[in-house]
Amino acid sequence: MYRDVLILYCRAPNAAPTETGMSRLALSDSDKQARDWFVKTTKALGCTVTIDNIGNIFAVRPGRREGPATFAGSHLDTQPSGGRYDGILGILAGIEMLSVLQEHQVETEFPVGVVNWTNEEGARFPISMMSSGVWAEEIALDRAHNTREVGGGTATVKSELERIGYLGSTPASYRSVPLAAHFELHIEQGPILESEKQKVGVVKGVQAYKWFTVNIDGRDAHTGTTPLQSRADAMLLAARLITHTHRLATAHNALASTGILTLSPGSTNTIPGHVSFTLDIRAPADATVEAMEADLKRDFAALAAGKDIGGLLANSTPGKPLSVEWRTDFVSPATIFHPDCIGVVRASAEAVTGDSSLVRDMSSGAGHDSVYASRRCPTSMIFVPSKNGVSHNPEEYTSPEDCALGAEVLLQSVLRYDRM
Amino acid sequence: MYRDVLILYCRAPNAAPTETGMSRLALSDSDKQARDWFVKTTKALGCTVTIDNIGNIFAVRPGRREGPATFAGSHLDTQPSGGRYDGILGILAGIEMLSVLQEHQVETEFPVGVVNWTNEEGARFPISMMSSGVWAEEIALDRAHNTREVGGGTATVKSELERIGYLGSTPASYRSVPLAAHFELHIEQGPILESEKQKVGVVKGVQAYKWFTVNIDGRDAHTGTTPLQSRADAMLLAARLITHTHRLATAHNALASTGILTLSPGSTNTIPGHVSFTLDIRAPADATVEAMEADLKRDFAALAAGKDIGGLLANSTPGKPLSVEWRTDFVSPATIFHPDCIGVVRASAEAVTGDSSLVRDMSSGAGHDSVYASRRCPTSMIFVPSKNGVSHNPEEYTSPEDCALGAEVLLQSVLRYDRM
Ligand SMILES: NC(=O)NCCC(=O)O
Ligand SMILES: NC(=O)NCCC(=O)O
Repeated sequence: MYRDVLILYCRAPNAAPTETGMSRLALSDSDKQARDWFVKTTKALGCTVTIDNIGNIFAVRPGRREGPATFAGSHLDTQPSGGRYDGILGILAGIEMLSVLQEHQVETEFPVGVVNWTNEEGARFPISMMSSGVWAEEIALDRAHNTREVGGGTATVKSELERIGYLGSTPASYRSVPLAAHFELHIEQGPILESEKQKVGVVKGVQAYKWFTVNIDGRDAHTGTTPLQSRADAMLLAARLITHTHRLATAHNALASTGILTLSPGSTNTIPGHVSFTLDIRAPADATVEAMEADLKRDFAALAAGKDIGGLLANSTPGKPLSVEWRTDFVSPATIFHPDCIGVVRASAEAVTGDSSLVRDMSSGAGHDSVYASRRCPTSMIFVPSKNGVSHNPEEYTSPEDCALGAEVLLQSVLRYDRM
Repeated sequence: MYRDVLILYCRAPNAAPTETGMSRLALSDSDKQARDWFVKTTKALGCTVTIDNIGNIFAVRPGRREGPATFAGSHLDTQPSGGRYDGILGILAGIEMLSVLQEHQVETEFPVGVVNWTNEEGARFPISMMSSGVWAEEIALDRAHNTREVGGGTATVKSELERIGYLGSTPASYRSVPLAAHFELHIEQGPILESEKQKVGVVKGVQAYKWFTVNIDGRDAHTGTTPLQSRADAMLLAARLITHTHRLATAHNALASTGILTLSPGSTNTIPGHVSFTLDIRAPADATVEAMEADLKRDFAALAAGKDIGGLLANSTPGKPLSVEWRTDFVSPATIFHPDCIGVVRASAEAVTGDSSLVRDMSSGAGHDSVYASRRCPTSMIFVPSKNGVSHNPEEYTSPEDCALGAEVLLQSVLRYDRM
């Protein structure tokens, strides 16, 4: 029964298992629908629901004794063209946990709960894990509220929370809503479990990452009358800088990615005078991310001034100097989860699979709400395999069986922790 | 008096000479205002006005005899953040010509006229010199009508012509509205006249150019969990390709520019699976543009497949192959103007300046409506200096004195040709 429900949830109606994706940007109309469903469903399962002033929704089922609840948590928002598992699986498995407890009339020692964190993706509002960050008091409420949507729109997190009716009255803070522990079931989003033919990842920590916006200023000019040597071509410089980020990432054994780029004025026959692009840098160690940042700042300035780096300017016509400005949008230092939670997850995974060779320790390449949860309560995560390691893509896929296995590990982890 | 009026027109009210720019995209509300003004003003100067079905406006002042008119022509549309001279100067000088003729009750041999061509810039609707091209029957009316605005909007040339009331009933064709000759006064948009301390350019021809849209398909993927070697990063490939276009332009002594780039899905933590960018290639000879195109097609395919070109992939991590597709948006072969018109412009320029060392022959880096006019009637152009060679930029500037000088050369050229 447990497995059946999950299979149902994880497959879109009338769709082959890998056919569809999700586009449920944070605080959009469809996010409101999913939230309404979450509130209704958890209330029907006997929960008390609290909404805080960053829109986090905490559903709590009472236990034998009073005290902070042990939580399953994740997020219902997705990338603009995301998959059906990233975040969603953790919430659905949490709700499935509540319904199993209810159905079997299980009394837990302390309360247990499920939390849906707002804007984990950072896709529409470019701070990832935003609202677990506010709850942890690591991101200021004001800064989160005033974050604007990408793409030049005027909506802010606060205006959208008001619009969809999810600006709650409870202060967003671990002081107002303390968690006894936080367990998060998530798809791996990478290739390791699949390629090693393993079933469950016991997540011990998360790699470091930093997000930047890089702004280039050159000069608008006519494409047909401006000789190469007279140009301050912001798009050409952006192209060289992005090429360079990849080289440095290779050298540092790190990751560098540009997901958004805008330019102006945006006309076929005008050389763009302005380009702005995002840069997402990641590595297991904070020091590597810092070193990448320092190297890139130095090299971007050199390339903007016309000094060659690594032959990028070879066989090119020297142009006019441009200016490059950096803005830091988001910092997530490397995270190590709590040994108690890691131990609980490992024990549960071995019990559920019945075969410890199907279980491995791993670290996460992606950020998760568990990063911020772990700053204020014992935390760990459970990973299940991602087909071809693909995520942030409609092709994201985890088999119903693997989803159900992960959900069982989640349930057991919460119950084991509750009993501790 | 002649000079005073031009000085007035060419300076925005209350603005220092270089302080302001123009944003009058083709067929926008502000284009409608400028058109209304053009129609009203030319009618008040005794002209008959004809509007064709691509929105070209022909104002004709009768002469002693019937027959095709000798025209001054250019365009009133601008770049999204353009200057106050590109196109506009040619129209204002044409109207000033009409008003001088009227004031002094000059009777010309044949009619003379002024034409405002629709969407010369190709900024909003990405075909430059669009409507002189339709008039010349070198661009199909349907194709022009159905051209959509850049940036994902739904407006087409036809829907906007209807909306602003400039979809005329006369067929756009040199057969319906024949021109005896076409003279166009324009700012140089380049640095030569200024740096040579000369005043008037006698334009003998226009360089070749081609516009393309390049579409890259890779795969959306998570920036934090996708190792460099598993990526099909469309933005990284675009960066390499744009870097390469500049190198090839250097090698061919040509120009290559990217003015528009869009990507999807557009999220900081998703590697873009799709990028689309424009490519504007120019060179004096058609053969050079063709050679550039052939080289770039070959090299783009190689780079997309992971084969290195010119060390671009050095110190990089090989990723997955991507696909690259080309679409040709616009072709303007090299143009040579008519010797009669060139002669008339040269004689007029020498007469007006009184010093032949202030006059030089030159060729145009930018396209102009005269390119298409020249396919169907004798044509030439008059250039005046551009400060710092800057154009397609609010800083575009030509001194009032140079504007007036150019206007005198235009007037004399039209009168000389009329008498021929
Ligand atoms: N799990 C996940 O995709 N989180 C988004 C935050 C990140 O970019 O890592
Ligand atoms: N004169 C001018 O800026 N024309 C626009 C067409 C081109 O791109 O050359």
